[in-house]
Amino acid sequence: MNAELIAVGTEILLGDILNTHAKFLSNELAELGINLLYHTTVGDNKQRLQGIVAQALQRSDLIVVTGGLGPTKDDLTKETVCEQMGVPLVRDEQTVHRIKDYFQRLGKEMPENNLKQALLPEGGTVFQNQHGTAPGMAVQKNGKTAILLPGPPHELVPMFQEQVRPYLMQFTDSVILSHSLRIFGLGESRVDELLDELLDNQNPTVALYAKRGEVLARITAKAETKEKCEEMVSHMVEQVKQRVGEYVYGMDVSSLEEVLVKQLIQHNKSIALAESCTGGMVAEKITSIPGSSQCFSYGIVSYANRVKAEELGVDPTTLKTYGAVSHQVAEQMASCAKQRGQADIGIGITGIAGPDGGTAEKPVGLVYVGVAFHNQVRSIELHLSRGLPDERQDIRQRTAMHALSLALNVLNQELI
Amino acid sequence: MNAELIAVGTEILLGDILNTHAKFLSNELAELGINLLYHTTVGDNKQRLQGIVAQALQRSDLIVVTGGLGPTKDDLTKETVCEQMGVPLVRDEQTVHRIKDYFQRLGKEMPENNLKQALLPEGGTVFQNQHGTAPGMAVQKNGKTAILLPGPPHELVPMFQEQVRPYLMQFTDSVILSHSLRIFGLGESRVDELLDELLDNQNPTVALYAKRGEVLARITAKAETKEKCEEMVSHMVEQVKQRVGEYVYGMDVSSLEEVLVKQLIQHNKSIALAESCTGGMVAEKITSIPGSSQCFSYGIVSYANRVKAEELGVDPTTLKTYGAVSHQVAEQMASCAKQRGQADIGIGITGIAGPDGGTAEKPVGLVYVGVAFHNQVRSIELHLSRGLPDERQDIRQRTAMHALSLALNVLNQELI
Repeated sequence: MNAELIAVGTEILLGDILNTHAKFLSNELAELGINLLYHTTVGDNKQRLQGIVAQALQRSDLIVVTGGLGPTKDDLTKETVCEQMGVPLVRDEQTVHRIKDYFQRLGKEMPENNLKQALLPEGGTVFQNQHGTAPGMAVQKNGKTAILLPGPPHELVPMFQEQVRPYLMQFTDSVILSHSLRIFGLGESRVDELLDELLDNQNPTVALYAKRGEVLARITAKAETKEKCEEMVSHMVEQVKQRVGEYVYGMDVSSLEEVLVKQLIQHNKSIALAESCTGGMVAEKITSIPGSSQCFSYGIVSYANRVKAEELGVDPTTLKTYGAVSHQVAEQMASCAKQRGQADIGIGITGIAGPDGGTAEKPVGLVYVGVAFHNQVRSIELHLSRGLPDERQDIRQRTAMHALSLALNVLNQELI
Repeated sequence: MNAELIAVGTEILLGDILNTHAKFLSNELAELGINLLYHTTVGDNKQRLQGIVAQALQRSDLIVVTGGLGPTKDDLTKETVCEQMGVPLVRDEQTVHRIKDYFQRLGKEMPENNLKQALLPEGGTVFQNQHGTAPGMAVQKNGKTAILLPGPPHELVPMFQEQVRPYLMQFTDSVILSHSLRIFGLGESRVDELLDELLDNQNPTVALYAKRGEVLARITAKAETKEKCEEMVSHMVEQVKQRVGEYVYGMDVSSLEEVLVKQLIQHNKSIALAESCTGGMVAEKITSIPGSSQCFSYGIVSYANRVKAEELGVDPTTLKTYGAVSHQVAEQMASCAKQRGQADIGIGITGIAGPDGGTAEKPVGLVYVGVAFHNQVRSIELHLSRGLPDERQDIRQRTAMHALSLALNVLNQELI
């Protein structure tokens, strides 16, 4: 089965946004064994979109079109594709109801043009949108299939994974199954070196994806049955773990914070935070996980020495002697957080995220993370600058991940 | 002049790499006033590449092709484009010399197939590659121009900026200029309704983009001079502001937190935070802005009643009487934060982000944001659930934006 992707949006042609869907969808289709032959991007222009869709329907069996499903006059995707396929649009009452409901819950009046989103192709498959108003849809006619998906990534990605992927399975005759290992603490090229020939394996395949600050290794097997797939994947997972095991923090998990919160809750332990350079990012990550109130109740963002001393309890002499960015202050911050939060583990973070504030002695990217547990306290020193411009957020992000990883290691060691 | 981009590379179709050139080149072409109508990606396949190039030469005046200029058999771009344009390839002695030199400097032997890279279109323009072996080139024939560029970004980007951009200046007789307004507090479809016929204007154009929790309106003019563009855009900006002005929080800015931090610093004011359901997200946003330590020193994540009372100073009776999620507690959190942070503005946030913890009386999505300034304190009630699954992070995100917006409004009103 040959396929092509069409992205609709003038903002892509103007270079305002990067077409990240193309990579995501290409990956997904490759895994499903669907041959993707073209990507095309076209603007919000009726005539040109018509031309592109007509051509695609001629040369490909499956077309996946992203964007242009919104409620405005500029949104032309659904109308154009259905017109080219000769499929009429009909009002879907369930979707009308859902959209009305959506606005009612928001306590807002529904703009009349939102009802345009309830016009759906006759006989098509609707993919409900859990994160916005525009539903996705699939239409089949004369041996051709068109799949239309909303543009925003936080709508498209879950819709694809939960609804479109299962829908597309009808076009493949074998089962495909993946498990993903999350790796923190090694760069992608180092993981690449260590896994070496495993990356050339044909079935199961091992693919590496560099994520923000970490690496994801996805192992995918194709076989006649799910059981056979599971067996093949498990075997490969073991081989991967033999090479990078100590850096693997979880399988089929989405983040360090998810694993940390789950383990804290499971073992009935709690954590407290004192953050300086990360400015609340670690607290934000932890509280992004549902149920985190069971293991987290106190975090402070002490963004000035006065606050570190008066509100948190760091000894002013320590601050003066060693400076705010030091092992000593990170450790005191950790101990004070643990005490104020009445927690089992305290984390203290202090560093220089830049762009200003660095010196020859304490440059941008220098970070200390302290951890307190039982009556012990220790700290690590990190050097996170890569000498790039605009790396403030990157340094903060990687600091936060190191802090989460440190907490997780302490928790695991203490429990062993 | 109409243009299109063609990226050549099977690795893009497999989703192994993200096509970042497309964004870079689109931006550059837009700035040069060249209309870019299509992006196409095609694999390293002779027949399909021929088809794509032939079509592009028919419908566009300028084609920019990236990738496929390497020395291997898989690299087909130059041969295919020149064949389609009817331009013969000739050996360029200067390039032969340069490639031999390059390998000599590396202390490596030159593989024979590298000489393929010294075959260049007759009468074409060569763009020397300062960072690799494959030269870029431009070919003109029958009113059509093709520009071929090497794939790797560290080769393509400097080549474009230093050599291709000046080359392209010959084709532009106009300037394009955009300004973007950020709108918070109205949905995309409501903004669409209010702007109505302005969205159909031809020059300047007004385009809406839904961003997470907000809307961006981009106004773009095309004229002979930059001054004329500025005048046209300004005039349209005024018309947009007449309709949605009170929701516009900035022009050519990237976020609410950027505007808030800049204004706080400019007016020598400071802010302090007490966060419950947002769990540090507002602090994280504020501290993501360089220089934020000038206006922010204290934030607390009080994720339990004990912490709200003991560490922040909320009256336990208030907590008991009204519950943690109430106007009263949000206001006390704001006042306590202001006091503990010794700040001009205090923000207090309490709500139910879900998925658990909601009741009939206080459902998921109910949020109170308090703000304290001078001797005043007030609070707003928000209903942020859309009844969707997995909306915890969305509720927190929108709560954080409301809090930033509230602080900004108070700051602006107080300064008036």
